[in-house]
Amino acid sequence: MKEVRYFYVPDAENNNELPQEEATHALRVLRLKSGDEMFIMDGTGNFYHAEVSLATNKKCLYEIKETLPQNKTWKGHIHLAIAPTKNMDRIEWMTEKATEIGFDELTFLNCTFSERKVLRTERIEKIVVSAVKQSRKPWKPVVNEMISFKDFISTPRKGRKFIAHCYQEIEKNDLFDIINSDKENESITVLVGPEGDFSIEEVRLAIENGYESISLGQSRLRTETAGLMAVTMSQLSLRL
Amino acid sequence: MKEVRYFYVPDAENNNELPQEEATHALRVLRLKSGDEMFIMDGTGNFYHAEVSLATNKKCLYEIKETLPQNKTWKGHIHLAIAPTKNMDRIEWMTEKATEIGFDELTFLNCTFSERKVLRTERIEKIVVSAVKQSRKPWKPVVNEMISFKDFISTPRKGRKFIAHCYQEIEKNDLFDIINSDKENESITVLVGPEGDFSIEEVRLAIENGYESISLGQSRLRTETAGLMAVTMSQLSLRL
Repeated sequence: MKEVRYFYVPDAENNNELPQEEATHALRVLRLKSGDEMFIMDGTGNFYHAEVSLATNKKCLYEIKETLPQNKTWKGHIHLAIAPTKNMDRIEWMTEKATEIGFDELTFLNCTFSERKVLRTERIEKIVVSAVKQSRKPWKPVVNEMISFKDFISTPRKGRKFIAHCYQEIEKNDLFDIINSDKENESITVLVGPEGDFSIEEVRLAIENGYESISLGQSRLRTETAGLMAVTMSQLSLRL
Repeated sequence: MKEVRYFYVPDAENNNELPQEEATHALRVLRLKSGDEMFIMDGTGNFYHAEVSLATNKKCLYEIKETLPQNKTWKGHIHLAIAPTKNMDRIEWMTEKATEIGFDELTFLNCTFSERKVLRTERIEKIVVSAVKQSRKPWKPVVNEMISFKDFISTPRKGRKFIAHCYQEIEKNDLFDIINSDKENESITVLVGPEGDFSIEEVRLAIENGYESISLGQSRLRTETAGLMAVTMSQLSLRL
């Protein structure tokens, strides 16, 4: 049995050619020929059953045979805003796993205690696309460029907003207890700080801006594990 | 402020010397001297406030000042039995993350479709110890040597037992729905298969042996993500 091939093509319906990288994979690795069957994902809710209409050395054109609209498996919008770890591997695996488990938006925060102040999102975007294809997610999570903590929290957001931190002097509630007992809520934004945590001023500023102070359980988690835990708790509370 | 140092010493109370690797770290990296303060974890529920009593080139002896018994933050016993991935990195990060999040026992399964039939557990054990220290877990998860699928499922286990698989022809229920609505249960064993899944005969054999057929949500997860999801769901349902 031939393995079914999935390719990611933004706005696939108004297009008829695989993007460069997908074409290279289709032609050089999978050696697809004219007439071969393929599946295309547009990252915005549709799969397409398609056929290779032309395969040259460099180009792979396709013809859509059937549009297959997909259903979302969770309601609302899950947005993780996280300070990237010093070690890129850690934030990259978190991105892969969060995409597999399912979320909607990822923003990188530049915080007072951030050890990584610059981040190129192209590589993160590639990891997201690869995990979207591997886990057959109809919607591709949006990846935003790094933004300062202050700019992020002063931007209005839909739904409930949370900030995870470790300060014992600031009262916290458990994220999962909150979202699991509020079945009306449909959108969740969670902030996760850097290795050295948010500064206490950042936590207070977030609270002034409508963020609820939370913990992610009683375990002491690394930044990337906290990010994945926030996504998993949100996913479990919003799934359909 | 000096960072607090945690060292793992099995049976610490009946001992007065750091094991070789911990001693090297204490002496060469942290440069601890006689009289320095340290914390010791025995991996079975106790921390100890201790002091370096003798530091030579190779040996680091300690004296316990105070026993600090810890409380468990979840009830019962969470046991993950998983077929290791072909790529060791993936099973190693899962081990680290599952330890941070919190579980009790890890067994590696040799299944029909396993791509990895041999696994040295020493490296896995080191990763567990490192994550136990980093996340300050009072209990160290037990790591078992690889065992054949048949031997594992024919061994009696306490509590509810589950097998996660992707066969559509075998009815499945959602693990989180089951364990979250059964507040009496205290022990959970979950089996997760290799990249190519369990064989359908293995799934049927497990069911005959009292394993419940489950899914881990609607997402298509890689082996290591499925393992972490099983641990996270169990942890969320059993936490105190």
